[in-house]
Amino acid sequence: MTAKKPQLHRGLKGVYFERSAVSSIDGRAGDLRYRGYSIHELAENSSFEETAYLLIFGELPTSEQLNQFDSRLKAERSLPAPIFDMISVMQSAHPMEVLRTCVSALGSFDASPGDSSREAIIEKGIRLTSQVPMIVATHDRIRNGKDPIDPDESMSHAAHFLYQLTGKQPGEEAIELFDKDLVLHAEHGSNASAFTARVVTGTDANFYASVTAGIAALSGPAHGGAAENVMIMAQEVGKPENAVEYVKERRRNRLPIMGFGHRVYRAEDPRARHMKEGVKQLSEQMGQPYWYEILQALVEAMKPWSRHGVNVNVDFYSGVVYHLHGIAVDLFVPIFAIGRTPGWIVQILEQLETNILIRPLTLYNGSKPRKYIPIDERD
Amino acid sequence: MTAKKPQLHRGLKGVYFERSAVSSIDGRAGDLRYRGYSIHELAENSSFEETAYLLIFGELPTSEQLNQFDSRLKAERSLPAPIFDMISVMQSAHPMEVLRTCVSALGSFDASPGDSSREAIIEKGIRLTSQVPMIVATHDRIRNGKDPIDPDESMSHAAHFLYQLTGKQPGEEAIELFDKDLVLHAEHGSNASAFTARVVTGTDANFYASVTAGIAALSGPAHGGAAENVMIMAQEVGKPENAVEYVKERRRNRLPIMGFGHRVYRAEDPRARHMKEGVKQLSEQMGQPYWYEILQALVEAMKPWSRHGVNVNVDFYSGVVYHLHGIAVDLFVPIFAIGRTPGWIVQILEQLETNILIRPLTLYNGSKPRKYIPIDERD
Repeated sequence: MTAKKPQLHRGLKGVYFERSAVSSIDGRAGDLRYRGYSIHELAENSSFEETAYLLIFGELPTSEQLNQFDSRLKAERSLPAPIFDMISVMQSAHPMEVLRTCVSALGSFDASPGDSSREAIIEKGIRLTSQVPMIVATHDRIRNGKDPIDPDESMSHAAHFLYQLTGKQPGEEAIELFDKDLVLHAEHGSNASAFTARVVTGTDANFYASVTAGIAALSGPAHGGAAENVMIMAQEVGKPENAVEYVKERRRNRLPIMGFGHRVYRAEDPRARHMKEGVKQLSEQMGQPYWYEILQALVEAMKPWSRHGVNVNVDFYSGVVYHLHGIAVDLFVPIFAIGRTPGWIVQILEQLETNILIRPLTLYNGSKPRKYIPIDERD
Repeated sequence: MTAKKPQLHRGLKGVYFERSAVSSIDGRAGDLRYRGYSIHELAENSSFEETAYLLIFGELPTSEQLNQFDSRLKAERSLPAPIFDMISVMQSAHPMEVLRTCVSALGSFDASPGDSSREAIIEKGIRLTSQVPMIVATHDRIRNGKDPIDPDESMSHAAHFLYQLTGKQPGEEAIELFDKDLVLHAEHGSNASAFTARVVTGTDANFYASVTAGIAALSGPAHGGAAENVMIMAQEVGKPENAVEYVKERRRNRLPIMGFGHRVYRAEDPRARHMKEGVKQLSEQMGQPYWYEILQALVEAMKPWSRHGVNVNVDFYSGVVYHLHGIAVDLFVPIFAIGRTPGWIVQILEQLETNILIRPLTLYNGSKPRKYIPIDERD
């Protein structure tokens, strides 16, 4: 018997594992759409609340539907009391460790965590969408010796996070840019965290298991950590004229340059341009134009080094935006999680529609069959 | 341009995503080997400690190596104080919610959770191997209003769990059967939880993120929950003579019969026979022979219903073993986690050797491109 040698798909690159009606991504054209709507139109015109509604329910809401959805989100702005204690105990840990643990714990405060009906997942999802930013803000307050800020139902989702983080009413421009950032991060097909959430859902595990696992995947630098690393890079480069030498040095040592390239996009990451404009305006307004200049110098410096053109991804610019707003570097990934929560919810909902165990295979390259040897006869 | 229609691999069935030198599984022959050693020889001759060593280091240990490894495991029998508080707060939740949350929290008590060197992962892994059973036992004590039992370094891994769970020195036969159960569950290739742990590791997320996500995947009834469901089924059937009618009724309503079939095995699940013997002996010894008889009656009753032969999986028998030992039904999956911990560790170690982002694609079947409509112009 001669069996065909199995094909190995490392990283599952190019392998389709499921259908999805949520995001369409054309990596060659640099086109991203949520439910058929261009990310550009959504970034310019939509809000996080509206985009979350669109992702979950499939259509843009009417005014009444949006108001109702917004009210549901606002009504869920509370955390179980033990979560505050857990955050205090873990306060010195990375915010992603805290977020992952608290979201996992939320399952134990849900009276029916295993209810995976569509209605139940939407209810749990709306609650979690409101709770994720509260966990992040509360942790940052506590670790800085400040009291957590009581929730306020008058503000939008974006404004409320900034308010709970800083204790101050944020400005209109800050809210707008942050809201846009959340829209841009809300969904992205079967990225590693959404895929992880689907794999966990595939075992019929509950909603909290799936989202906890998604957060675990997002915490990795190769997924959600780029913005943090770009900021560190921009600080290392220091001024625009150092960019060429920095890139040369990294290339010489075969080290990656952060914020360039994407598994899916072979053209511009369509989300990048919106944050680019934000960085430009914000860094000028704040009298720190060098941040934008450093990033642009890095883009120029990268050009000779890439055969496929040099394309920055969304996180190339978003980190500097957060930094200019005074947000700590280790909160960049949690902010990504705040934006991505609706994406996880809708991916879990879709997986549940025609659920199946996701269980690939590994190609064995280990020891040949061998006989067990009693311990006193081993060398 | 006519692009070839992409092939859809639902559930990633039959797709090879990586190489592995740990387990070889021949699903048609019903053959399972850890590092080349037959699961039958290991089940009969090895201990959990030796098997864990074999999985992690690739070779059976000498006496000295095994003693050293065992000492390291025993030295890690402690939990950070805040874990006890967390368990108390979550005590009424399912043990898998508690285990997932506590393992996630352990990351925040590790001074360098992000160290992913081989040595660091092995150190963290050995610690976690000792802590997972302690979390499970401590939770069960607390939820039953009993004090947690102080750790004891004189006992084997299997004995220590039973001791911390019951507060009593377990008998030799119970230890032996439980130890065998842990060996049988220690590794199983790219099952959903190990695969999840690899996907999370693929983003360069840390060890705690990966194991937490693995636990999340294991909690699903389609992965780790079978033993629990078989026990519930055996209780529903009540006596052997009801088995035929029970199977007929379930089949008529298109409901699954628990504990039969496996994604990978087309023959006998090679792990099943070891637990079958255990159930037989134990149910006779304990004067409850009907448990074994009910299970065997179910196997007979299933025969007319399957074209491919009727093959029980390992969890068909293991649940009844746990039950006969007085272990609560909702601890069956956590016990699977206790056994599987070395498997997760070695899968993470392997993934790190040639790490790559695991990011497949979804086939878009959603709305065509459409233009954004301002909210006051929507129907």
